[in-house]
Amino acid sequence: MSKVDLWQDATAQAELVRSGEISRTELLEATIAHVQAVNPEINAVIIPLFEKARRESELASGPFAGVPYLLKDLTVVSQGDINTSSIKGMKESGYRADHDAYFVQRMRAAGFVLLGKTNTPEMGNQVTTEPEAWGATRNPWNLGRSVGGSSGGSGAAVAAALSPVAHGNDAAGSVRIPASVCGVVGLKPTRGRISPGPLVTDSDNVAGAAHEGLFARSVRDIAALLDVVSGHRPGDTFCAPTASRPYAQGISENPGSLRVGVLTHNPVGDFALDPECAAAARGAAAALAALGHDVNDAYPEALGDRSFLKDYSTICDVAIAREIERNGELIGRPLTEDDVEWTSWEMVKRADQVTGRAFAACVDELRYYAGKVERWWEAGWDLLILPTVTRQTPEIGELMLAKGTDLEGRQSAFISGSLQMLAFTVPFNVSGQPAISLPIGMSSDGMPIGVQIVAAYGREDLLLQVAAQLEGALPWVARRPQLLNPSRKIPAA
Amino acid sequence: MSKVDLWQDATAQAELVRSGEISRTELLEATIAHVQAVNPEINAVIIPLFEKARRESELASGPFAGVPYLLKDLTVVSQGDINTSSIKGMKESGYRADHDAYFVQRMRAAGFVLLGKTNTPEMGNQVTTEPEAWGATRNPWNLGRSVGGSSGGSGAAVAAALSPVAHGNDAAGSVRIPASVCGVVGLKPTRGRISPGPLVTDSDNVAGAAHEGLFARSVRDIAALLDVVSGHRPGDTFCAPTASRPYAQGISENPGSLRVGVLTHNPVGDFALDPECAAAARGAAAALAALGHDVNDAYPEALGDRSFLKDYSTICDVAIAREIERNGELIGRPLTEDDVEWTSWEMVKRADQVTGRAFAACVDELRYYAGKVERWWEAGWDLLILPTVTRQTPEIGELMLAKGTDLEGRQSAFISGSLQMLAFTVPFNVSGQPAISLPIGMSSDGMPIGVQIVAAYGREDLLLQVAAQLEGALPWVARRPQLLNPSRKIPAA
Repeated sequence: MSKVDLWQDATAQAELVRSGEISRTELLEATIAHVQAVNPEINAVIIPLFEKARRESELASGPFAGVPYLLKDLTVVSQGDINTSSIKGMKESGYRADHDAYFVQRMRAAGFVLLGKTNTPEMGNQVTTEPEAWGATRNPWNLGRSVGGSSGGSGAAVAAALSPVAHGNDAAGSVRIPASVCGVVGLKPTRGRISPGPLVTDSDNVAGAAHEGLFARSVRDIAALLDVVSGHRPGDTFCAPTASRPYAQGISENPGSLRVGVLTHNPVGDFALDPECAAAARGAAAALAALGHDVNDAYPEALGDRSFLKDYSTICDVAIAREIERNGELIGRPLTEDDVEWTSWEMVKRADQVTGRAFAACVDELRYYAGKVERWWEAGWDLLILPTVTRQTPEIGELMLAKGTDLEGRQSAFISGSLQMLAFTVPFNVSGQPAISLPIGMSSDGMPIGVQIVAAYGREDLLLQVAAQLEGALPWVARRPQLLNPSRKIPAA
Repeated sequence: MSKVDLWQDATAQAELVRSGEISRTELLEATIAHVQAVNPEINAVIIPLFEKARRESELASGPFAGVPYLLKDLTVVSQGDINTSSIKGMKESGYRADHDAYFVQRMRAAGFVLLGKTNTPEMGNQVTTEPEAWGATRNPWNLGRSVGGSSGGSGAAVAAALSPVAHGNDAAGSVRIPASVCGVVGLKPTRGRISPGPLVTDSDNVAGAAHEGLFARSVRDIAALLDVVSGHRPGDTFCAPTASRPYAQGISENPGSLRVGVLTHNPVGDFALDPECAAAARGAAAALAALGHDVNDAYPEALGDRSFLKDYSTICDVAIAREIERNGELIGRPLTEDDVEWTSWEMVKRADQVTGRAFAACVDELRYYAGKVERWWEAGWDLLILPTVTRQTPEIGELMLAKGTDLEGRQSAFISGSLQMLAFTVPFNVSGQPAISLPIGMSSDGMPIGVQIVAAYGREDLLLQVAAQLEGALPWVARRPQLLNPSRKIPAA
């Protein structure tokens, strides 16, 4: 009987291939079969690259030789493969990227095999993954529920073991939100930690708010992946402080007693936190206290001020308008209103009202806000623990707005989607700090609830050490989503 | 007889104070007397802080206890001190800063004593230092000649031993140009290496092109200063890869044979390089070859493309308009046309024509250009050596434009000043790479000529090792400017 177990993490799968207990072909074919069996129900993988994967798998060499991974269809591109950003016009054009992004180059150098590309809302611009271009991705824990966004395809895929690890990117919570609602580990690293290059997209990566990120089912996979893909590359605007040693080396060490702040209420007061989300964070905080950390109710005062979202939204409007321009240049014709979803075109119209000075002023305002948030850590706190998302997982369709809905008063940051999805994640895009969502909680109706931990700028080392501690104290690895048909056996379940 | 020798570098002065051979009071009073004797002729120090220095000197502790330094009157502020950015309206308002910048905090923590603030063109926006607010700073090598810009006050002050080290900032060459024409060492480090915070200025530091920098008369002082002031601080947009060890530790080590490219012609071809500037760089290149480096005529192809200056200039227009807004907020009233120089107001009028989308597009264009420049280093080159400035040092007044001059066709990047001053420096502001100007050459009419070395992103360690090698091979420390009166003896000359 094959020893392939798709529920193993990438580190274990790589070890089995290395030791010869399984062949890379065995691993790849089992994975492809599983994707073909499950994906039709969850629609996580929108651009399968099975033939390319088979070719690449044979040539793969490196510590993760033969292990499959999935790439979000946004920003980071792979040569010769369809690239749509879930823009209808781009999908119809059949555009294919003419180069490999640095991320893809580095993953290949480590032996990873690109299996396919995952779904995203158009241009990553919503907190649920239901684009017109590719249809909705459904939550493997309950097919009627959202997978969050915008890296919803990757979150759902890793949750359903379509691959052990996947790429995503996060400009307001787009890795952490799907990780939370799909029950996997999602890391948004420090701004500049992972190069999005060589392409220059999203108007300077949404003025520095958009960070490439990672999905996995184990903390050690996240650490190993971070070692593979970290580091400045030519043209990168942003950069992170260099780690003093590889992350994979440090995660099993005890960081000693850390000062941990806990936030389980909405400091702005404009909505109530879901009690189950709050309880998940409290449970994790209690586990940290039991592990010897100094845990107290405390949080950066700046989280009680959400005025920055106005400036952030203006930057998003201009970034979306720029993306539509840039994608039009790729296919040799301007993209029009018909090529994109109506909410995106609303943002283009808003962008046209923004002057250069106003745009620059918005960027400066985000920098001031970043300083206010970061100074809490500089005052001596090591970590903040809080829910990733502040509400229960939405239904499919719940966050999507019918064309013509009055958008008055709706900031672009959550033009489609509720503030409660990103309120606790977007501040750390602006501050650039590393934040991770851990699949610690479960709701009473059987949906995963993520707990978020945030470290000081550049301190992924500390973040991963404590994440590994919680992985041991509150293990999640045995929990599996009940796919559309409970009797469906996932190979080697 | 006092052992104070103001021509010694900060490292030596600190050692004398530490050993007790001189007292900090002796050092400070000798420095103040020297400034009072020389500054009236060169007008480098515009805001003397002698009483504050006397108070701070007594309390100073740290490796540089008692050693004076000077701060450019732009971006980095000191609490309670006049802060004008050489804006007439700000000078007249008497505005004083309400906090110490991170830079000032770190210098004080190392024991440095803030002696005063140095001259700059208005908002650092020209390549010569002749602001209406404070009058021209004159070159201590020839009082009829410019000190370059925009950190001209700091360059001239260190050249005339008014202090051993000084702060500057560099958005197109504003540390390296004054270092070149004043005959001192000037480092523009990697983008994000030195925090400009906590203030957010110049529209996100001219979209990442403006970097805080350092002046000294020795390479070891630059290395020691970099260790004092480096590192991410809260709210910093940009960050540099962390050095693997303190710079001061590494500079005397031999980096082994490095691949060095040499550029001594104008690859765009729109003007001829001054032969003496070219010869200075060739001389340094020959010295590097003699030191065992692999030196060849080679340079990044992107230096032959100056189209990015159009986008850079648009960003400067918006940054100046934002600075005028920001400074007006500091004094509680908008600054008007009468408060600023006419070229600055021209830039405000240009900024008003710029849309948010156009501004964002300009930023993206700079990122593409940065990638093109950096990829030369990624292809295996370690260093590039070229002249800092491509022309002889201008006369006082030569670069200043009479009000009403037709600015048609003049990009804001050199709206006042010639392209030949910044053509070889501005590309590395955009790419974010570290670059240093070394006082290696001398013109036939007795003016210093700087030679620029550029390293890969984050590699100040390599840059400083090679700079120290050239400091040994082509020593400059004995060369002194003949101040206005040749018979004038500088204390302990």
